[in-house]
Amino acid sequence: MLMYDIICKKRDGQELSCQEIDFWIQGYSSGIIPDYQCAALLMAGLLRGFSRRETIAMMNSMIASGERIDLGDIPGIKADKHSTGGVGDKTSLVVMPVIAAAGLQVAKMSGRGLGHTGGTLDKLESIPGFRCQLGADEFKRQVREIGLAIISQTADLVPADKKLYALRDATATVDSLALIAASIMSKKLATGADILVLDVKYGSGAFMQELADSRALAQLMVELAQQSGMKAAAVLSAMEQPLGYAIGNALEVSEAVAVLSGGGPADLRQLSLTLAAELLVLGGVADHRDQAEALAREQLASGAALAKFQQMICAQGGDSNFNHLPHAAVVTAYQARRTGYLSTIDARKVGLAALCLGAGRQRKEDAIDPAAGIVLHYKLGEQVACGQTLAELHCRDQQQAAAAAEILDEAFAYSAIPPEPIPLISEIIS
Amino acid sequence: MLMYDIICKKRDGQELSCQEIDFWIQGYSSGIIPDYQCAALLMAGLLRGFSRRETIAMMNSMIASGERIDLGDIPGIKADKHSTGGVGDKTSLVVMPVIAAAGLQVAKMSGRGLGHTGGTLDKLESIPGFRCQLGADEFKRQVREIGLAIISQTADLVPADKKLYALRDATATVDSLALIAASIMSKKLATGADILVLDVKYGSGAFMQELADSRALAQLMVELAQQSGMKAAAVLSAMEQPLGYAIGNALEVSEAVAVLSGGGPADLRQLSLTLAAELLVLGGVADHRDQAEALAREQLASGAALAKFQQMICAQGGDSNFNHLPHAAVVTAYQARRTGYLSTIDARKVGLAALCLGAGRQRKEDAIDPAAGIVLHYKLGEQVACGQTLAELHCRDQQQAAAAAEILDEAFAYSAIPPEPIPLISEIIS
Repeated sequence: MLMYDIICKKRDGQELSCQEIDFWIQGYSSGIIPDYQCAALLMAGLLRGFSRRETIAMMNSMIASGERIDLGDIPGIKADKHSTGGVGDKTSLVVMPVIAAAGLQVAKMSGRGLGHTGGTLDKLESIPGFRCQLGADEFKRQVREIGLAIISQTADLVPADKKLYALRDATATVDSLALIAASIMSKKLATGADILVLDVKYGSGAFMQELADSRALAQLMVELAQQSGMKAAAVLSAMEQPLGYAIGNALEVSEAVAVLSGGGPADLRQLSLTLAAELLVLGGVADHRDQAEALAREQLASGAALAKFQQMICAQGGDSNFNHLPHAAVVTAYQARRTGYLSTIDARKVGLAALCLGAGRQRKEDAIDPAAGIVLHYKLGEQVACGQTLAELHCRDQQQAAAAAEILDEAFAYSAIPPEPIPLISEIIS
Repeated sequence: MLMYDIICKKRDGQELSCQEIDFWIQGYSSGIIPDYQCAALLMAGLLRGFSRRETIAMMNSMIASGERIDLGDIPGIKADKHSTGGVGDKTSLVVMPVIAAAGLQVAKMSGRGLGHTGGTLDKLESIPGFRCQLGADEFKRQVREIGLAIISQTADLVPADKKLYALRDATATVDSLALIAASIMSKKLATGADILVLDVKYGSGAFMQELADSRALAQLMVELAQQSGMKAAAVLSAMEQPLGYAIGNALEVSEAVAVLSGGGPADLRQLSLTLAAELLVLGGVADHRDQAEALAREQLASGAALAKFQQMICAQGGDSNFNHLPHAAVVTAYQARRTGYLSTIDARKVGLAALCLGAGRQRKEDAIDPAAGIVLHYKLGEQVACGQTLAELHCRDQQQAAAAAEILDEAFAYSAIPPEPIPLISEIIS
């Protein structure tokens, strides 16, 4: 088999066989196939498309490139969650404790964020003392004992995906539905969970702007999971404005704790409950969505979910009273520039402003400031008066605040009449 | 400017600016842009297409990557010729002496062949003593004195093309009309000739199988030449069967000498005369094609073209009596397998058989056997009887001959009725 012939086939719009895809993915992962041949094939695939069969083959080949985690020795149903990423998205910190409290097992591996704000791990690490690097035995013991552990991905998890993603990132070949789906699902399947809920976001602050694109991605990922014997559902949720009010690692932990304590922002609470309910149905803990959501709500109201979260934090060395979360040296107010209804709170720009304050990393090697971020005071459609505080900026110095404020000037828009409300959850695919 | 953004633009089907193309070509040539980014752009360009403006910009940028040869200090009109390559194509060995004898100046740089048989240089080097590496001064002096010199390309000629071609060859991105045209024309323009004739072949033994594709390539190349102030014409010629009877380096020199001496195969003579006539018209030596062809024919009949060729061979150290051309140790007959009309003499397969005998190189570093090759005894449409000799195989041993004979079994086809004749020259574009 020659990589040259495989490139020709895809260039000419033909379907690759499983053997050809395996030859490519394994060959690239092991360094036998050079970057430039892989780049040519990726671009041909992006423009010509990959069939379902090809996508499944890519996913399976990526999984086979590394170690597959076996959770078979943990009793119960192991649940996982994935979000395509958004600004202020801290739902994992709520959903996983809720479902663990309701009886599902959570043995979750997370990645770090490379974007406006940190990933789930970065958020958890803003809690003083929290350790996300557990050995396999310690990890499994914790799941067996308290039903909840969130740790960092090992380097051996789907190495082919890591190498392919870096190349796609440098060659403008990220935006292929098939490649995105195969990349996400290879990692989810390699971590060995039984059930999975996907939070697929759309809108200005999401990876995909259009609902139709995110629906296609969601359908493809659910199909890939089912093909591999994993039960999965996907929730399509809007990412026009940030989720909740807090953007930034420690700030988001506080907000998640507020939801776990029975309060917190309505949108964050609702999306978390919907995601948790899907997992409870998939896992057979509840018979239907309404029952499942009521059960999830109970875990919040009773304090069971918060207690579960604190158990995990404690087991992983963190301060489970959240009394010592880092605070920013400078907290300044950002004021409304006009009077009117908030007609836009551009999630991407708010994310950029948070990045500017130190809440995210631009390059893999950048350090995050766990205290930095933004706390919004309003949501879309609310009425504000010129000069009123729209947001607090948490950062190290006034220079950062001034730079972020400049970006925020473009993030907010005001209107004389209330804007059409955007539904948070537009559909559920299962 | 970022290469990433340039890839995105082409991936999305947009036109690149001259600055963007220059950034890409110069950056890749100098090693700043990595192979994998260039490969992604090449594949995007192949599938999305390049506009005329982009093609011209690519060509100009490639020319600018190296040294441009200045023939301004040689009086007269400097003529050049290019063939897209075919089996048994030795027209340069006839055309250039003919037009030099008729008063045009030939300061030609040729490449080596990487294919079934050698290139013009390989053919000339089968003449004992012939030197193709002349210094710039020696080269120009020879042109001034006898009007004819054919030497090897310097390494500095369009280095960007050399690097790009190697990458295209490894990434299945050769087959883009725009890239092919820009590559050929950058080299032709860099060598500083005033007029150019292109022999663009089509058919089973040609780079392009379809007449329509070769017409599009010919039109594009003529336009690129004219855009740069070079007068050019293109002849579209059939490459269904080998040109002439001889395939192989020394064998082809002998056949060219036969044409220069007033004899030789009709198809080789006619195509050579047509190509020469185009140059004589472009160079203003004749007013129209008929007059030009008659003038060219005179150069053959009078012996002037042969004398010019011998002058060049002599000046470059070769044996101009052609008494010592290498001869193969083994010459065996290949017999007709059936009785009938020859309905196919597949040029590509005959070329492969010649390669098998040692007449060409499969890799750049391979050595050519100058004596090896094939001499056909028949052309398409002729009647043969089973067992009659169809071809002589010239090689080192019987093993090579047996391997070549196996390939030739698939090259010939026989029919009960005469096949439709294929016109040698289908059109001329100027």
